[in-house]
Amino acid sequence: MDENEIIQKLKNSEMKLYEVEKHTSSVEEAIDIRRKFIEEISDTNLDIIAKYDLDMDSALQKNIENPIGTIQIPIGVAGPLKINGEYVDNDKEFFVPLATSEGALVASINRGSSTITETGGVNTRVIDDKMTRAPAIKTESASDAIEIKRWFENSFQELKEIAESTTNHGKLLKIDPILIVGNYVYPRFVYSTGDSMGMNMVTIATEKVLNLLLNNTTAKLIALSGNVCVDKKPSAINLIEGRGKSVVADITLPKNIVKNKLKTTASAIVEVNTAKNLIGSAASGSLGSNAHFANMIGAIFLATGQDIAHVVEGSLGITTAEDRDGDLYFSVTLPDLPIATMGGGTSLETADESLEILGVAGSGNAKKFAEIVGATVLAGELSLIGALAAGHLARAHQNLGRA
Amino acid sequence: MDENEIIQKLKNSEMKLYEVEKHTSSVEEAIDIRRKFIEEISDTNLDIIAKYDLDMDSALQKNIENPIGTIQIPIGVAGPLKINGEYVDNDKEFFVPLATSEGALVASINRGSSTITETGGVNTRVIDDKMTRAPAIKTESASDAIEIKRWFENSFQELKEIAESTTNHGKLLKIDPILIVGNYVYPRFVYSTGDSMGMNMVTIATEKVLNLLLNNTTAKLIALSGNVCVDKKPSAINLIEGRGKSVVADITLPKNIVKNKLKTTASAIVEVNTAKNLIGSAASGSLGSNAHFANMIGAIFLATGQDIAHVVEGSLGITTAEDRDGDLYFSVTLPDLPIATMGGGTSLETADESLEILGVAGSGNAKKFAEIVGATVLAGELSLIGALAAGHLARAHQNLGRA
Amino acid sequence: MDENEIIQKLKNSEMKLYEVEKHTSSVEEAIDIRRKFIEEISDTNLDIIAKYDLDMDSALQKNIENPIGTIQIPIGVAGPLKINGEYVDNDKEFFVPLATSEGALVASINRGSSTITETGGVNTRVIDDKMTRAPAIKTESASDAIEIKRWFENSFQELKEIAESTTNHGKLLKIDPILIVGNYVYPRFVYSTGDSMGMNMVTIATEKVLNLLLNNTTAKLIALSGNVCVDKKPSAINLIEGRGKSVVADITLPKNIVKNKLKTTASAIVEVNTAKNLIGSAASGSLGSNAHFANMIGAIFLATGQDIAHVVEGSLGITTAEDRDGDLYFSVTLPDLPIATMGGGTSLETADESLEILGVAGSGNAKKFAEIVGATVLAGELSLIGALAAGHLARAHQNLGRA
Amino acid sequence: MDENEIIQKLKNSEMKLYEVEKHTSSVEEAIDIRRKFIEEISDTNLDIIAKYDLDMDSALQKNIENPIGTIQIPIGVAGPLKINGEYVDNDKEFFVPLATSEGALVASINRGSSTITETGGVNTRVIDDKMTRAPAIKTESASDAIEIKRWFENSFQELKEIAESTTNHGKLLKIDPILIVGNYVYPRFVYSTGDSMGMNMVTIATEKVLNLLLNNTTAKLIALSGNVCVDKKPSAINLIEGRGKSVVADITLPKNIVKNKLKTTASAIVEVNTAKNLIGSAASGSLGSNAHFANMIGAIFLATGQDIAHVVEGSLGITTAEDRDGDLYFSVTLPDLPIATMGGGTSLETADESLEILGVAGSGNAKKFAEIVGATVLAGELSLIGALAAGHLARAHQNLGRA
Repeated sequence: MDENEIIQKLKNSEMKLYEVEKHTSSVEEAIDIRRKFIEEISDTNLDIIAKYDLDMDSALQKNIENPIGTIQIPIGVAGPLKINGEYVDNDKEFFVPLATSEGALVASINRGSSTITETGGVNTRVIDDKMTRAPAIKTESASDAIEIKRWFENSFQELKEIAESTTNHGKLLKIDPILIVGNYVYPRFVYSTGDSMGMNMVTIATEKVLNLLLNNTTAKLIALSGNVCVDKKPSAINLIEGRGKSVVADITLPKNIVKNKLKTTASAIVEVNTAKNLIGSAASGSLGSNAHFANMIGAIFLATGQDIAHVVEGSLGITTAEDRDGDLYFSVTLPDLPIATMGGGTSLETADESLEILGVAGSGNAKKFAEIVGATVLAGELSLIGALAAGHLARAHQNLGRA
Repeated sequence: MDENEIIQKLKNSEMKLYEVEKHTSSVEEAIDIRRKFIEEISDTNLDIIAKYDLDMDSALQKNIENPIGTIQIPIGVAGPLKINGEYVDNDKEFFVPLATSEGALVASINRGSSTITETGGVNTRVIDDKMTRAPAIKTESASDAIEIKRWFENSFQELKEIAESTTNHGKLLKIDPILIVGNYVYPRFVYSTGDSMGMNMVTIATEKVLNLLLNNTTAKLIALSGNVCVDKKPSAINLIEGRGKSVVADITLPKNIVKNKLKTTASAIVEVNTAKNLIGSAASGSLGSNAHFANMIGAIFLATGQDIAHVVEGSLGITTAEDRDGDLYFSVTLPDLPIATMGGGTSLETADESLEILGVAGSGNAKKFAEIVGATVLAGELSLIGALAAGHLARAHQNLGRA
Repeated sequence: MDENEIIQKLKNSEMKLYEVEKHTSSVEEAIDIRRKFIEEISDTNLDIIAKYDLDMDSALQKNIENPIGTIQIPIGVAGPLKINGEYVDNDKEFFVPLATSEGALVASINRGSSTITETGGVNTRVIDDKMTRAPAIKTESASDAIEIKRWFENSFQELKEIAESTTNHGKLLKIDPILIVGNYVYPRFVYSTGDSMGMNMVTIATEKVLNLLLNNTTAKLIALSGNVCVDKKPSAINLIEGRGKSVVADITLPKNIVKNKLKTTASAIVEVNTAKNLIGSAASGSLGSNAHFANMIGAIFLATGQDIAHVVEGSLGITTAEDRDGDLYFSVTLPDLPIATMGGGTSLETADESLEILGVAGSGNAKKFAEIVGATVLAGELSLIGALAAGHLARAHQNLGRA
Repeated sequence: MDENEIIQKLKNSEMKLYEVEKHTSSVEEAIDIRRKFIEEISDTNLDIIAKYDLDMDSALQKNIENPIGTIQIPIGVAGPLKINGEYVDNDKEFFVPLATSEGALVASINRGSSTITETGGVNTRVIDDKMTRAPAIKTESASDAIEIKRWFENSFQELKEIAESTTNHGKLLKIDPILIVGNYVYPRFVYSTGDSMGMNMVTIATEKVLNLLLNNTTAKLIALSGNVCVDKKPSAINLIEGRGKSVVADITLPKNIVKNKLKTTASAIVEVNTAKNLIGSAASGSLGSNAHFANMIGAIFLATGQDIAHVVEGSLGITTAEDRDGDLYFSVTLPDLPIATMGGGTSLETADESLEILGVAGSGNAKKFAEIVGATVLAGELSLIGALAAGHLARAHQNLGRA
């Protein structure tokens, strides 16, 4: 079948979009045909989408279906950023790759980085590291639900062995909490997952464990994910218990750096943090208390091939500021960073290159990367709060002529 | 100065990253030099990041600082998707561009689209359309705060004129609510913003209004955004009051389509939705009650140049399901979609092409686009809940050999 | 039938508890018989429950069913408390009646009152005053739901007339927000209700309005209260929009009073408020940010005959503290106080007496009372935060020998 | 000093309210004098407040300061209520004492009880039992905070011994979670506390533990309670992790009982529960998903001497309903019931009598009591949801002539 025939069949609904690959000699050809089909029916030219440089053979197996090319997002760098961590090289100065289309964001993070580096670096620590999956299980009654809860508690060692038989790197750390709501049970399986983000790993391991449950009890599995995990939704349980990497970063800026670099004072920054991040967030019923974690998380996740939907979880967290006799203590706490340095989108070439820039591509680097993410979030948060304190946020945007 | 000199100066910290453009004859040259600098100090080859096709001259002015190239993300299409809206062409079948690195996502949305289209289309409506900005204002006392609240209420017509003098398209609809917390005031300015997403527009308009406040009262502006807006953070006020486009989409699937396409039943889908989205979300302290809005929002936002950090807001919302004598009524409600068809990241070439595919690029198309986003979210949500009901989510992933 | 026969019938389940009154010549007799029945089957002596002094005839009609007597709770007073309000007599010093069984609570509020009064009084203001009811309405589809929303918006004047025809004092202020979730509609009716708390008033008025809806559209009323009101549950919508009386109270304590009365400093109090009320509450996913509003609300509600279940709503709110060159600015904001000075439990004799102590019994006094509640909450909050700052909370309890 | 002299001194502010006892020969005399003073300055007659029957000597030591008498609240009974629990006598039928001033509440609970008992009883289980205290601790930096977290983890056995040395009945079960926010640490101490509610016990035990921390590290104690406990505030952590007794109750009502007793159907009840408790609560940003737990909790807490401020915690929880071929499965889950059968307000005579009615006064009865509370909440919740389903809530109120 030649290109035109395939396009004709697509138009006539005689072929599905995903069937194109069956009739072409290469993925590239299939991509071209599918894109031409889309161009024809939408009367467009997708010239830039067409100019991809990724290995789409590989992507088709792991990352995408029905591909027609790629989108491109500009990537800029912020740095040098000095980080004092437990895993990163503390002698190194980092240049952080950030993919975004929001003007001024990289510049703002850059300003924060510069402030940090001049101060000698931001401190970052990984507090916790885990991935979770919590199925929704249904029983006949609340007392049955309690028995299932007991079953999980009493079978833990056996379940741990079963779960870990499905993976080379994953470890089942605990099943906690096990929520009961009427006749429903939501056991939260908590795993360590090494350097992969671990969502699929924990899904497979948990499913295997649940087979034992289903074979040995009358419990019914309603859904492998019961929204107690909680994946890609804003939730208090993740804010409290953490998910993915839990990271904290802090710094103490001397008075003169606050003055010269941020053009403000520690007390003004504390005032903004209190009015906006603490009180404003409380008054609006927000989960978390920060200014714009999502911006930094979004840009670094996009550059490094993380799952964009996980920006929702990464946006959780709290910023604190303290006036220490004119010096500024400033911290960001990020309880929920589901990140990876291998697998998923990190295998896409530009993502891999971004991870390479940071020296964290591939196995053995997830906590290093987590520390860098924490440091970058602090840089951006400090810069914005500093700018608000200095009173010139809107003017900065206005000068750039944007609306 | 030649390339090597510049790189040397960057290495010696004698030049800032953003100063490179001053010493080159083109943005492209600056990008190359900066990227080479990064390659050298990180000992990497950024070959694919280098192969960009965007107009970086334009991007540098609007979207990015310190660019070194672009990242690429595969883009696939799901469709045909039939939509019965108030703004979209109801005779058209849409192919939705989705950028993602999460394998199986496009396939899943595609399955949902197919189910929808076979049923005759998904209904979508834009309930509301607005953009908000809520500064944090500080006064001496609670009674002063109340006076400021009254001032806003009483000056509304004047403030409206001032606000609207700063923009061609924006209208100040109301200032509501005006929260008081002790001596703080958080007036939530609510604007219509036409086809742009409107964040900068409302920031500029609000700043102008606040100048009047600052000139006429003793109130103090702490921050132009006081976390009551609420931008890019998960918050109840946005879930309740809405922000950006508020969209609802629904469909009634005949029993046989539920059976043949989704391999399940209406009652099984209701059971999953109740156990997972409603009860599970309540038990975990989640904001919103859905399975994975963020996945669809993330993929379509990324393809069409929306701000990725806004995925946080787009993830809010509620899914409902009802068994109507074996037929399935299914709905998604999305109160908070800050989207645009012009400005910001939509001007990047691949984003523009994606919007062109949908026929919604440029002015006059924002509500059309909102309807498509709503329809796409329903497609993906229906597919996942259907798959969970059919019990094969994990197996599907397992078969694809992913961990 | 004599007493023994009735008791025998109750024992044999030949008579219902509420049928006793049909066979006795007085309510008091029925109460005695019912209590004796309970004493016999539970083998107890209910001697003190028996010694009631309320007019149970009246109570049986308005407040209780199946009465067996009364419970007694000690009532103490805190004061003098000086209040600078808009409604209360600013020259008066109040002694606030507080019913509680929690040792040290009245003493703590008393300490706060003393601190306040020495400073010249606490400022209180009623920001807003309303009662709400939000039914759950179901339609066939989301587009029908939107039509119902429009119907409410377009029929407002007519609906207002209907609603107000059911009441002498209630006014329908607005229907806002009108939430749509799929095919459900939740219109939040907002009323002013004068001096009664207004729950029943707004229920009746709203039901009348809904009759028009049901007669003129195909919408279906699922529940008169759809949990968007929100009555007696903790919810963000009440925190944000307010319900009942919304009250704020504040004070600035001179440095020496902070030192001499509270044995601490402004900065220590700010530190406690930030660590506990602001950051601790955010980290635990709390609604509101205060130390113990519920204690003061509980004690004053109990003393004055408010509905105890409304303590849930009264517990919402935010405490702020600011160090003003050593002086302490301190505020409490209470967005949700459903209180009354007439009707409901306020007609019970001891409740009425408590309201008399404050000079707010009966019509025309609700806002006065609201100001007193706000002032009392500030007194208790200031005292506890002050005590924590002074580091002696636990020791105080320990010395009283309690566990 | 005679009565008139004391009153005069009180009027002249030459004596404090709590000093009256020093000048009288009995507590009763002091109460009379203080009350007369209040009567004089407020120009009232507090005749019924004066007629107390409690042992005020005892109350003054444990429950109240500055007493002037008691308030009285009518107490009614609902029953017979049959309960199938793990601790209560399953052959017994309970009559539940309920103190309230909200007309129709006891009748409603009674209707639920009758429905339950006719069905053979409600099943109740105590899922968990604990009391918590989480201080706010401050360190110099995030890395110090992590060290303090480690210190708590590594010192657990020693800390357990110290904590348990302060109490006869309390056991330190775990310290979990230990939240870190920047340089703050919030360790949540989890204790079992036997039959007392345990707040003071855990405060004292935790304070002792913290002395070790303060002596061995540079950490600073900001507040013994850091709002992560969370005491008397609505919070997600309590909803998720539980506090006090965590209780679940359920029942399956045969179709004919739903029809005859509740005048409705299982499917109508499911529809109300879904529209109101699940979707309505989600749409309004509520914590928990129920109709009116607070009403039942308030009435039984008030009757039995529980701390009224704990109604806030008791109001959390989720109601589920399921249509099982026309039969109704119905459950309530109450994660957070801080209750006691001894200590605190339970020692007041009428509270003790109420506990006696239930056969749960004094030591060894807390879990029995928890089961009864759970059963009572289900009775009231079932009745209201049933009434809403039957469409006659407002009419019922209207007929009683209330506004």
